[in-house]
Amino acid sequence: MATKNGRLLFNEVPTGYPIPGKTTVYDTTSTIDLDNEPLNGSILVKTLVLSVDPFLRGKMRSPEKKSYSPPFFLNEPLYSFGVGKVIRSENPSFKVGDHVYGSTLDFTEYFIPKDASKLTVIVRPAPTLPWSVYVGAAGMPGQTSYYGWKEYAKAKAGETVFVSTAAGPVGSLVVQLAKQDGLKVIASAGSDEKVQFCKDIGADVAFNYKTTNTAEVLKKEGPINIYWDNVGGPTLEAAIEHSALYARMIICGFISEYNGEENYGIKTMRNVLTNRISINGLLVWDHEAKYKDEFYRVIPQKLASGEIKYTEDVTRGLDKCGEAILEVQKGLNKGKKVIIVADD
Amino acid sequence: MATKNGRLLFNEVPTGYPIPGKTTVYDTTSTIDLDNEPLNGSILVKTLVLSVDPFLRGKMRSPEKKSYSPPFFLNEPLYSFGVGKVIRSENPSFKVGDHVYGSTLDFTEYFIPKDASKLTVIVRPAPTLPWSVYVGAAGMPGQTSYYGWKEYAKAKAGETVFVSTAAGPVGSLVVQLAKQDGLKVIASAGSDEKVQFCKDIGADVAFNYKTTNTAEVLKKEGPINIYWDNVGGPTLEAAIEHSALYARMIICGFISEYNGEENYGIKTMRNVLTNRISINGLLVWDHEAKYKDEFYRVIPQKLASGEIKYTEDVTRGLDKCGEAILEVQKGLNKGKKVIIVADD
Repeated sequence: MATKNGRLLFNEVPTGYPIPGKTTVYDTTSTIDLDNEPLNGSILVKTLVLSVDPFLRGKMRSPEKKSYSPPFFLNEPLYSFGVGKVIRSENPSFKVGDHVYGSTLDFTEYFIPKDASKLTVIVRPAPTLPWSVYVGAAGMPGQTSYYGWKEYAKAKAGETVFVSTAAGPVGSLVVQLAKQDGLKVIASAGSDEKVQFCKDIGADVAFNYKTTNTAEVLKKEGPINIYWDNVGGPTLEAAIEHSALYARMIICGFISEYNGEENYGIKTMRNVLTNRISINGLLVWDHEAKYKDEFYRVIPQKLASGEIKYTEDVTRGLDKCGEAILEVQKGLNKGKKVIIVADD
Repeated sequence: MATKNGRLLFNEVPTGYPIPGKTTVYDTTSTIDLDNEPLNGSILVKTLVLSVDPFLRGKMRSPEKKSYSPPFFLNEPLYSFGVGKVIRSENPSFKVGDHVYGSTLDFTEYFIPKDASKLTVIVRPAPTLPWSVYVGAAGMPGQTSYYGWKEYAKAKAGETVFVSTAAGPVGSLVVQLAKQDGLKVIASAGSDEKVQFCKDIGADVAFNYKTTNTAEVLKKEGPINIYWDNVGGPTLEAAIEHSALYARMIICGFISEYNGEENYGIKTMRNVLTNRISINGLLVWDHEAKYKDEFYRVIPQKLASGEIKYTEDVTRGLDKCGEAILEVQKGLNKGKKVIIVADD
């Protein structure tokens, strides 16, 4: 019996923000026979959760442009992190009912992976932990925070860290890791609600960068020993200006220039010399081998117990995904953005 | 008998370039009795060599302005690296005829150090090595290159390094260390004569940045795995733009902004994320404990034997020192600038 298999297709390379219905199109013309579709030794997965992250914008480009992650293919579904449930299996590594996690789940309601070995069976420490957290604090964003903090922060108790987009899935874990290490945390976010969340998770100073001048806060509350950068631009410039001697800066995102904005000229780079700053670009995969096992041993348990807090901003339905992508690019989401494609 | 003791005094905080006779003044009103001046347990040193380096400009500031090195005092002699000869001694660690090296030699013809323990007795591996080299390739500039290269370059044979101000005392040793490690070296300098020197010491590609576009050279000859930055500004911007994945950048100088120039806005910082670049500010003293002994064991010998080459641009007479300082700020010197205050 043919079942509709909704798909979010990459339709057009955007010049600025990704526009729902133009950059991406939700397509319902495809169908799948859930009982009889040939698996050829693979598995059939029902998509439960898909992740919407800032970096998706970087993949919406012409194939000629090089970047750290390959581009999406036009007229094909987007793909990214997600969790699914195995509903048929011809692969002995997976049984029906298993939950699987992967980084290249098609943005479709159902899929048959070409290479099922890229999927990992996940078992949660407690049912209190929703599967969606495995694309957030217990997934790639959480790993980004954890790996980057362990590798580059060189945190010492009593130091001061500044975290931008601190209410986001990456930033909010950084805030909590920093507090665990005994640091003073300055957090910036883009709404008063997010600022409140930063305070709830322990930030000593939290401010709305849209209504408060970042440089003034850093001047007053700094100098900063560590800067966790998710935005680039003037915020990075101010962080460099108000850095302490031997400051460490982790450039984890640069969302201020993801959507065709003119590149901002950072005028404080001489301070890198004066203060002997160390700046490092971070991509989570570079550190996977070193920290992955430790991460899964430590973090999901703390999320399930509530020792580490997270927020999610849930959208139900793959048909709403285009709007969710735009929301994240504009910073309008309230916590880690996830799409619930189907219930467990 | 009173002997004239010429002194170069810090006379006025400059706003732009340091002007001889205005920023600094050569004073001949002071005298010293070489035979009878009380030593109070110290030594009397005849200054042989003084070093003129770009960083002196940073010390010509108001005391309120913080930086990595303390400011000069107005109406007092400048001080910096130099070599002198002990002509009287009441300190058992020094005997008459010893050559001493230090980082805070007064810019005077004779001096009695308040704290002689800051001076090191130096013995050269061969008389073919002039004492002046101990303020250049065998001194602080050479140590800067050596320490920075060992600590941050993570050089691998076959990689490409770009060195700015490559004919200078720091850059020229970096070029040679890179060649010893099997790298392709791109070198920039500010005159055709300096470019020729870069080629003479092994640079694979050398160009005059005043007549050739740096970004175009890097585009053609890069991408670069390592950038040794002595200048900052648009050169740093171009290096970041044409960097390879996992590039390492060592910010050792920022001479493009030492003389009151407006800070340049660097527009390519997003590449730090894309290519996971590591940028580190370098100050030689931070790495002294780790690398100093190794440096003195390895480098002076290679300089004496000619295995490592160096150039000097010699000015004779402390009275000409103001002009020499300006020359270095403008990049008009032809090799490491030294003042020969007196012959050995």
